[in-house]
Amino acid sequence: MNYSNPLEWQKAYIREQGVDALVSTSPDNLAYTIGYVMPSLQLGVRKRRFAAVVTPDGPDVLLVVTPEFKQAQADSRIRDVREYNEFTESPTTLLADILRELGVTRGRVAVEMDHMPARDYLDLFRELPDTRFVDAEPIFDRLRMLKTEEERERLRRIGGIVHRAHIAAAAAARPGWTEMQYGNAIRDSVREQGGEGLNNLVVASGYRSTWSNSAPTQKALEEGEVIKVDVFAYDNGYQSDIARTVAVGEPTPFQRDIWARLVDIHSAMLEHVRPGASTRELWKLFVDEFAARDLTPTIRFAGHGLGLSLHEEPYISTYRDSRLEENMVLAIEPVTQVDGVGFHIEDEVIVTANGCELISDGRGEMLRIR
Amino acid sequence: MNYSNPLEWQKAYIREQGVDALVSTSPDNLAYTIGYVMPSLQLGVRKRRFAAVVTPDGPDVLLVVTPEFKQAQADSRIRDVREYNEFTESPTTLLADILRELGVTRGRVAVEMDHMPARDYLDLFRELPDTRFVDAEPIFDRLRMLKTEEERERLRRIGGIVHRAHIAAAAAARPGWTEMQYGNAIRDSVREQGGEGLNNLVVASGYRSTWSNSAPTQKALEEGEVIKVDVFAYDNGYQSDIARTVAVGEPTPFQRDIWARLVDIHSAMLEHVRPGASTRELWKLFVDEFAARDLTPTIRFAGHGLGLSLHEEPYISTYRDSRLEENMVLAIEPVTQVDGVGFHIEDEVIVTANGCELISDGRGEMLRIR
Repeated sequence: MNYSNPLEWQKAYIREQGVDALVSTSPDNLAYTIGYVMPSLQLGVRKRRFAAVVTPDGPDVLLVVTPEFKQAQADSRIRDVREYNEFTESPTTLLADILRELGVTRGRVAVEMDHMPARDYLDLFRELPDTRFVDAEPIFDRLRMLKTEEERERLRRIGGIVHRAHIAAAAAARPGWTEMQYGNAIRDSVREQGGEGLNNLVVASGYRSTWSNSAPTQKALEEGEVIKVDVFAYDNGYQSDIARTVAVGEPTPFQRDIWARLVDIHSAMLEHVRPGASTRELWKLFVDEFAARDLTPTIRFAGHGLGLSLHEEPYISTYRDSRLEENMVLAIEPVTQVDGVGFHIEDEVIVTANGCELISDGRGEMLRIR
Repeated sequence: MNYSNPLEWQKAYIREQGVDALVSTSPDNLAYTIGYVMPSLQLGVRKRRFAAVVTPDGPDVLLVVTPEFKQAQADSRIRDVREYNEFTESPTTLLADILRELGVTRGRVAVEMDHMPARDYLDLFRELPDTRFVDAEPIFDRLRMLKTEEERERLRRIGGIVHRAHIAAAAAARPGWTEMQYGNAIRDSVREQGGEGLNNLVVASGYRSTWSNSAPTQKALEEGEVIKVDVFAYDNGYQSDIARTVAVGEPTPFQRDIWARLVDIHSAMLEHVRPGASTRELWKLFVDEFAARDLTPTIRFAGHGLGLSLHEEPYISTYRDSRLEENMVLAIEPVTQVDGVGFHIEDEVIVTANGCELISDGRGEMLRIR
């Protein structure tokens, strides 16, 4: 796998798989195919339908709602863009027409069974009774695990911005700030560095540090607490997922101790990330490293793929065994809870030929605010 | 319709409709039912499934993925929360179990056919062969058109914040700023006023002012241009959709003229918003008012419902005729393009017993930056 962008890689892969057309409909797989996030989908206007149809050798077609037509013509990697009126036309009928025009309706057409709404699928199925529909999910899982050159560069850029934003926010903050103020300091730093935006972020202090994915509130940051901070920024749809635990004031001996154990577990994991490593064995290593330090992992995976989705294949867990491969991008994240306090460290890596390249590295002293 | 929150209204309405259970799975309908936006869904982790099951008289159940369990217990309006392991358990099987437990599997169960993924629907259908599945879309369209007290208050609050943010950003900006800097000024003001966040915003200047829903770029704001600015902020999932056209420097006679015509069209529309008004007649009025001023509307509706979705029923368009009712919330938005320049004004109203309450009002002088 050595393609410069996802459309080239898609075409090569479906040719190899004997798929006659690959249809993307979900926000993330569309962005993957065309190279940018469709604004309507970023805004959650989910009733607007979009479809990108990619064929192994022939032309590719993008179908969008009229208000997105101009931007699609300017920005989409697929150059043949069609539009439909969302009030008078059926996008499913138009998609069937496009598949007919491309001559693939007697072949294998992969659609996103884990995304395409039931009604659309049933309609498409009725329109094209001779077509053999197959599930696109395993195809996209495979494609998206291995990042093309363009994707690695986008992930490096946004990950670097977020790593620095954690340091900047801890330096700027003061005890007594609210969680929201802390979140704003993160956002400001991401923006000052030219980051496109944040989907959301976790700022969970004190008793809230055991909650997962919890947005900042008006709760004040009190001396002696820790804050669990996780930042979900994006650049052209590509995500960051980098977490830090920050002490409010000087860390207590208890906090230093747990942090040091978590950093050791993190290092042990990072040393073992390389092509050929088994995700199930990495999970076992993770659990063993926790147990050796008298801790328990809070979440049921040690890490996960990262790209256009915050969580994607491969997961480092007991549930499925995959082998790591060059050009995968992973977030590795030891999380634990001790005596009602949550601790989290999470960094991103690119699997290289012999090991991994760290996009970020949060080991060393615990961040603190004074 | 006079309910304090959407769960009460849901239960009353499905009782009246003879539906035995209403299942929400989409991010917006889940937020509607439980009262907050599930963090995983806000982050676009679409492979995590959630379901809220509401019955007319009996208990209601919420099914969430394990990492969301604690927050759901704390924040969900539905108090009976169940969790599942996303790697080992099938949420569809668990949803079928819940429907069995509630004793509704021989009745009418409404599911979101326009959202539930094809695979989930086919699995559920196989699990419950005796169940009569009906489409929840028209039910939710009806429910969500009429805003409960809690919803009106949330929409008033975020709309007021955004109205003031437009004024603050125009006052702070200078010619030569980039579109991104302008967008940051909007974001800063929303945050300073305690707004939860922005999904995105449109800042489209010069030739870009004819694009729709286009995020700010590094393009500089040049004297003599106009900027089309539209702000999509949110509070507990409830959206804002308020647009302004801003002159860079003193507006030219051309810009003043088009703006004045657009404001007149806007006023004519606002005068006619009241219970009983026909959306198709309002659209006709809109087109006539444009034509009387020698302009053409750019988009195919004059306005739309607003709530947990940026665009929802009722649309003010030619495509469907609805009657306005008390407690609807609408965004009214004249948009036009003249000689390659786009102009937009958009304000939000709540339909009252006799007319409408303006959440925002952008009429009067065009905003300008100097």
